[in-house]
Amino acid sequence: MSALRFEIVARSASCHARVGRVTTAHGAFDTPAFMPVGTRGTVKGVLPNLVSATGAQVVLGNTLHLLLRPGPDVVARLGGLHAFMGWPGPILTDSGGYQAYSLADTNRVTDDSVVFKSIVDGALVELTPERAIDVQNKLGADIIMALDDCPPSVDPATMNQSRQRIDAQRAAADRGRRGYDHGRRLDVANERTIRWLERCKKAHAREGEQSLFGIVQGGTDLLRRDWCLERVCAVDLPGYAIGGVAVGEGFDEIVRVVEHAAPRLPVDKPRYLMGVGYERDLLAAVRAGVDMFDCVLPTRNGRNAVAFTPEGPLRLRNARFAEDPGPIDPSCDCLACRPGGHGWALPPGGGGAFSRAYLRHLFMAEEMLGPILVSIHNLRHFQRLMLDIRAAIRDDAWSALARRWPVAARPAGLDSGQSGDERPET
Amino acid sequence: MSALRFEIVARSASCHARVGRVTTAHGAFDTPAFMPVGTRGTVKGVLPNLVSATGAQVVLGNTLHLLLRPGPDVVARLGGLHAFMGWPGPILTDSGGYQAYSLADTNRVTDDSVVFKSIVDGALVELTPERAIDVQNKLGADIIMALDDCPPSVDPATMNQSRQRIDAQRAAADRGRRGYDHGRRLDVANERTIRWLERCKKAHAREGEQSLFGIVQGGTDLLRRDWCLERVCAVDLPGYAIGGVAVGEGFDEIVRVVEHAAPRLPVDKPRYLMGVGYERDLLAAVRAGVDMFDCVLPTRNGRNAVAFTPEGPLRLRNARFAEDPGPIDPSCDCLACRPGGHGWALPPGGGGAFSRAYLRHLFMAEEMLGPILVSIHNLRHFQRLMLDIRAAIRDDAWSALARRWPVAARPAGLDSGQSGDERPET
Repeated sequence: MSALRFEIVARSASCHARVGRVTTAHGAFDTPAFMPVGTRGTVKGVLPNLVSATGAQVVLGNTLHLLLRPGPDVVARLGGLHAFMGWPGPILTDSGGYQAYSLADTNRVTDDSVVFKSIVDGALVELTPERAIDVQNKLGADIIMALDDCPPSVDPATMNQSRQRIDAQRAAADRGRRGYDHGRRLDVANERTIRWLERCKKAHAREGEQSLFGIVQGGTDLLRRDWCLERVCAVDLPGYAIGGVAVGEGFDEIVRVVEHAAPRLPVDKPRYLMGVGYERDLLAAVRAGVDMFDCVLPTRNGRNAVAFTPEGPLRLRNARFAEDPGPIDPSCDCLACRPGGHGWALPPGGGGAFSRAYLRHLFMAEEMLGPILVSIHNLRHFQRLMLDIRAAIRDDAWSALARRWPVAARPAGLDSGQSGDERPET
Repeated sequence: MSALRFEIVARSASCHARVGRVTTAHGAFDTPAFMPVGTRGTVKGVLPNLVSATGAQVVLGNTLHLLLRPGPDVVARLGGLHAFMGWPGPILTDSGGYQAYSLADTNRVTDDSVVFKSIVDGALVELTPERAIDVQNKLGADIIMALDDCPPSVDPATMNQSRQRIDAQRAAADRGRRGYDHGRRLDVANERTIRWLERCKKAHAREGEQSLFGIVQGGTDLLRRDWCLERVCAVDLPGYAIGGVAVGEGFDEIVRVVEHAAPRLPVDKPRYLMGVGYERDLLAAVRAGVDMFDCVLPTRNGRNAVAFTPEGPLRLRNARFAEDPGPIDPSCDCLACRPGGHGWALPPGGGGAFSRAYLRHLFMAEEMLGPILVSIHNLRHFQRLMLDIRAAIRDDAWSALARRWPVAARPAGLDSGQSGDERPET
């Protein structure tokens, strides 16, 4: 019946982490998996075969963006999203609900739908559960997501400065803002999420080819998380996701929610933590039993000259790199870092990778090749982390992993501002 | 003595065209050759190994841009331009003279130098013949160009509307503009070009590794071309270029000048027509005996959604491509056009190239992958044209070539506005 098979091939002896393999109609991917984000049918700036060369086995597409442009019917007539974007491997599409909240200038959520203003032409667009599934049936991704009601994770009144713009947008979604009651808002979201999930499942027309995942909401309130989780998991589905996390609440809160919720999801189904995140977020979530991740960080930061390394990020526009002959990360084997990684036979006397100095030059000169190379490097960085995490699970070798990836091993409570809302790639 | 070897391996029986091979310290390239332009140390948007995969064997770098940023000393300390940009094959750098004229807000040409305003920081920069060569010695390209005085090719007063902005910049270079005498300006440019060439040759400090080419000026006045050509060719150099062409004068004039000048250049040395051009310009110049070309058209037009085909260019933003499932050019074997060109094994049931519809979507959504893919296609388009031109020379099969490449076979006098000033990639 289900279009998806999930096998667990290894379990950690000391935590909830597991190594698995998800098989879809378009091939398989290993878990824990990090999915690069291809918002508009392209992982920004990276050719599909180079995305694949970073080790990525599954990518994410954004339903809302593709609904607005070029439209699901166009994609369907061109053979579906796999053919359209030249990615024949597994694809997951989100439902569009989160983007409808976070991207639109004005929106209106009712018990029946989200209505938002198109970022392409300003027209009002209504997203019902049925429409979200119909669009995803047309796009044809292997894994599709139920439409959920994704409220602010914490009371906007209590959120910190740096999140105020995002908060304000989310709060505006609640028409009764003057009398905003955060707990009541979470309850309404939970109830809608359950009702919409049932409508999504009923509307799903391609169960033999596409696997519908449900999404658990509930904010940072663990009792509300439990309420939602029980009801979502009561619907028999091939996989489950944790949503409404990393939307402004910081590392400690992310970990608290994920450590509570992930182990309570069915043990024999893939568990997907939406929109997360930084290296330490991923590691903490894997230890709590999460199998799948997506995040725009590798490409968004890559476009902004921020390169990830196991010791922490490098800001390549910094003047200290102006004559630095070394690669971004000597331990990395990506196209940008590997000696000879530019695909040429090495000239006599050796030959290097792309130097930090060259990459800085590209960014200072606003040359496209800078974003391209650093995006490729960052994508590989996260895939290498996942490879090492899968090995650490098999061998239960967490301290060795922490030594190789100091950036992923930072204790909770430090620098928690680094985590956060990184989902909508715009 | 010379760092360059040129062998002619085939000659046309019916025109001046020849097939040759230029060997440098960094490898060889076949002629007639089309050199992609890597202005700031990168062919815009295309990884070096993908540039190579289009069939390009030699690329061009712009001395002026690299002088301003990151600076020749930085490039030298990082191992020279080949190592810096990850292109171990042959490189040619121009002298910076043309860019100093065409890019700077204000400039001043004297018998000793060009002084212009930096486009990076607004500082005044002086380019003498000695400085132009010193910078190129530091960059380390295999072929370097003498500094020339590159005036407007035709009297600015007679130029057409569409060129007025460029004309105004060039005319501003001549301080005595109110009493501008075009013939006098060409004579001054010719005299300077000869004197500067002698100074360049004297200043050249790496004759064993880098080959200095001289440049023939003279505008569209054939007598002045002859005057300059005789004196430039009296200096013993490994190669010679025709400059000051395709700077606003249209296809017919380009052909008239090139058909006159090219056959008069030494027959045993490579002949380089700078900054040209469209397909029919290349074909006409090859038939006149030209061996080397450079032009920004493939990448600049690629970034603007204009894709070259043998039948003429496609403007991919056009609504008629919105659901076009075909590739840019079914006869093309580039990454973008070839079925399976995305580097994947074809899925069961086949699988296509990147469709025109997908490419249009990328441009409408302002996704980087659009410029990347169309630049790659356009680079391959010009390399395929050169491959076919080399075959046509060997077989003296010009009518077959014209049938395969109708865009290159358009008669002179039609649509001549298509040719023109395409040199400075900015």
